[in-house]
Amino acid sequence: MAQPTHYHMSPEEFRVWGHAVVDWIAAYQRRVDSLPVTAQVEPGRILARLPRTAPERGEPFRALLEDFENLILPGITHWQSPHFFGYFPANNSGPSILGEMLAAGLGVQGMLWATSPACTELETRVLDWLVELLGLPAHFASGGTGGGVIQDSASSAALCALLAARERATGFQSNEQGCDGNLVAYASTQAHSSIEKAVKIAGLGRRNLRLIEVDERFALRPDRLAGQIERDLAEGRKPCFVAATVGTTSSNGFDPLARIGPICRQHGLWLHVDGAMSGTAAVCPEFRWIHAGLEFADSYCFNPHKWMFTNFDCDCFFVADRQALIRTLSILPEYLRNQASESGRVIDYRDWQIPLGRRFRALKLWFVIRHYGAEGLRHHIRRHVELAQRFAAWIRESPDFLLLAPVPLNLVCFAHKAGDEFNRRLLDRVNRSGAMFLTHTLLNGRYTLRLCVGQTQTDEEHVARAWDTLRQTAASLAAEGPTAAGPATK
Amino acid sequence: MAQPTHYHMSPEEFRVWGHAVVDWIAAYQRRVDSLPVTAQVEPGRILARLPRTAPERGEPFRALLEDFENLILPGITHWQSPHFFGYFPANNSGPSILGEMLAAGLGVQGMLWATSPACTELETRVLDWLVELLGLPAHFASGGTGGGVIQDSASSAALCALLAARERATGFQSNEQGCDGNLVAYASTQAHSSIEKAVKIAGLGRRNLRLIEVDERFALRPDRLAGQIERDLAEGRKPCFVAATVGTTSSNGFDPLARIGPICRQHGLWLHVDGAMSGTAAVCPEFRWIHAGLEFADSYCFNPHKWMFTNFDCDCFFVADRQALIRTLSILPEYLRNQASESGRVIDYRDWQIPLGRRFRALKLWFVIRHYGAEGLRHHIRRHVELAQRFAAWIRESPDFLLLAPVPLNLVCFAHKAGDEFNRRLLDRVNRSGAMFLTHTLLNGRYTLRLCVGQTQTDEEHVARAWDTLRQTAASLAAEGPTAAGPATK
Repeated sequence: MAQPTHYHMSPEEFRVWGHAVVDWIAAYQRRVDSLPVTAQVEPGRILARLPRTAPERGEPFRALLEDFENLILPGITHWQSPHFFGYFPANNSGPSILGEMLAAGLGVQGMLWATSPACTELETRVLDWLVELLGLPAHFASGGTGGGVIQDSASSAALCALLAARERATGFQSNEQGCDGNLVAYASTQAHSSIEKAVKIAGLGRRNLRLIEVDERFALRPDRLAGQIERDLAEGRKPCFVAATVGTTSSNGFDPLARIGPICRQHGLWLHVDGAMSGTAAVCPEFRWIHAGLEFADSYCFNPHKWMFTNFDCDCFFVADRQALIRTLSILPEYLRNQASESGRVIDYRDWQIPLGRRFRALKLWFVIRHYGAEGLRHHIRRHVELAQRFAAWIRESPDFLLLAPVPLNLVCFAHKAGDEFNRRLLDRVNRSGAMFLTHTLLNGRYTLRLCVGQTQTDEEHVARAWDTLRQTAASLAAEGPTAAGPATK
Repeated sequence: MAQPTHYHMSPEEFRVWGHAVVDWIAAYQRRVDSLPVTAQVEPGRILARLPRTAPERGEPFRALLEDFENLILPGITHWQSPHFFGYFPANNSGPSILGEMLAAGLGVQGMLWATSPACTELETRVLDWLVELLGLPAHFASGGTGGGVIQDSASSAALCALLAARERATGFQSNEQGCDGNLVAYASTQAHSSIEKAVKIAGLGRRNLRLIEVDERFALRPDRLAGQIERDLAEGRKPCFVAATVGTTSSNGFDPLARIGPICRQHGLWLHVDGAMSGTAAVCPEFRWIHAGLEFADSYCFNPHKWMFTNFDCDCFFVADRQALIRTLSILPEYLRNQASESGRVIDYRDWQIPLGRRFRALKLWFVIRHYGAEGLRHHIRRHVELAQRFAAWIRESPDFLLLAPVPLNLVCFAHKAGDEFNRRLLDRVNRSGAMFLTHTLLNGRYTLRLCVGQTQTDEEHVARAWDTLRQTAASLAAEGPTAAGPATK
């Protein structure tokens, strides 16, 4: 048999299989609401069904698609199910998937302006759009001293912000001399774990992260922040960074930026604001209160890949002073030098992020915003908030359940009155049923169920069914008595 | 007019537009060789053509696709062109694009095993496949103490490795106390800029990065490394990390792992090996010499998104001791706790990387390996190496050009004999022509042209045409004389 001249999939074959994959996705969108939300598999089950070695000879694409359906799909937890209420959402949409497809097909690597000018300039434009669309302070737009960039996640955005803060506080000497052991960072006890991770990575050390107490709404207490900064200064430390959150992960608490900001200004601290999920709400004027005081922020991020119908990954990170960020992260080996960069007339986004390479993520974001329009985005955000509020009202009216935190937007924190152990069992049972998925947290030491409304297709019927499932499951559990089901393993 | 009930793209619309996008990509694959490789646009040109504000009302997808073709495509530098020889490649392929499409359609976020078991277990399996496929040391497989994970890039892999090294060297105290200012890291003068970036990010400081001299093959000199470590120890510093490279970016130099490894072992230094592009060559047994001594490495990475037909991003990062990595990067907020994690029976890849979230990148890698088979991958890698060797032979035989570095694999470093200024103009002119794209570096202070053969569709005719273009352009430039074209701006 003759040796094949190549093993590539031809454009014609790609067309055929591409249509098959598109059809698969369209069918998945239709049926995802009927699939068990959480994968019903034991650890190691998928692994055991996959061959131990790579194939020596190529296989027909049909076999790959069949294995995808038969081996992989049963191990998927369906984030796109309208019955998914866990964590924060990571929703997607048709236009976003199409943008990701085109980005993969083009296969450009946008590390420099020169390596694909459109990849950079579209990103600049779309991030500027978002400044206006969310009513963000104008200094985050590229026209002045600031600008926006797409990161993979809010974790990476926080790390970049912390690094720029570290450098600014040390006259850009930490990059050169090593991290100053006296630097101190601040966040609330409710801040996302990525802040702690960033503090470790950047070499400040966890002991130099002060977790500031929150009030009864789970918002950082500015008085405590100011007091702690004063104590640190008195002890000869160098406060450099405050991470505030607009919409904490546990309970959707909102740190009071308008009061935190002046404290940061007074002491020259970098204020980073993490609006990972909730930031999207600001497309609606009535929710812009979440950003009150954002004009004090040196940096801000929110994730279209959470609540803005843009598939993961897509975090939008804005800085007020792009030079501080660029000076912190820039490297310039000879092999990346080019005329455009040296002209000073272009943005090279590789200097705005941790990795060097980057794909063309602005494309999907552009498609999403243009497909929905501001009007469409507002419609769906309002709808999700309305549904969460309705669910919260049911909890309030229920004799058996109670709310454990305010419900400012689309996250409801609640519990059955029967106590932590009961709630653990309730969560476990509803999730195992596959009918819905929700997650938990601890609030004031209390085991708390979290229901977040934000998946693309989630509508009234799904939230209503979630409420029915929760009540019925709770009733069954109560009927079984405390010992019948045995203690839940947490 | 009635208010629409929703603004989503329906599955049926998605199917129609998905087919259109697939057809666009297939057509792009057919025509990309005829497009100017580099975008022929001035800075700001694309930006100026994009509206300054987001649309209030949604737009038909047809308009988006038209704008993509008319506004974006002219600003694209075509990395997938067979005439692209710049940097290191970032190739893609049909099966990879299809895998990315399915990942986007599923929209799962694989931060935890529990958030989609198949996303984690497929990744574990495919990374284990690669250990065997590349003949990597068995301790990088998940069956023992090690394991592999997909990162976005070799930059992030290097940062993770450095962080683990930092922690191991300080008894996991830097995370807690802040980076120890005495820690020292080592790499060659030819190491990728990401090592310097990682050293800054991790808080060691650039002054604590020792760039070790290389030999005439641009390989790190182990004697110099050993000497520098001894000096640092004598001065009371704490050497902790060596980054070796198998296939440097400038010239494809290979650091001698078999001699560096014992030095690292002797002093307890973490040895990280960066095989970003060249690692893929190890699918061919005759190229496995590049990894001789890799058994000494604590960590290793290579990028299927460079030379293994997998679209960006996909870096495979392996560690010999996964516990060191996990202990370095793990965080555990209550809202991520789950039974599977606490059983200790599963991998949660969020603890193997900087960000928390992650998309289902194993899918495209699985598709690529199964589509090509080991046989197909070997075929194309051999072909690329053969073509580069042929080009190198033409350079060697040419009276006007000369090689400036050995050509071990698929990267050729060369220059015209007429000197740096001439070569600058030569590079500028061939790139501006749009007929091909190559980049440059400095080797021993000399301006050097780099031609790397690694794009999916690059074959004999494209390399031959590149050689013709270079010779003809050089002849024209020579005929114009030194002043005719004026000095090139670099």
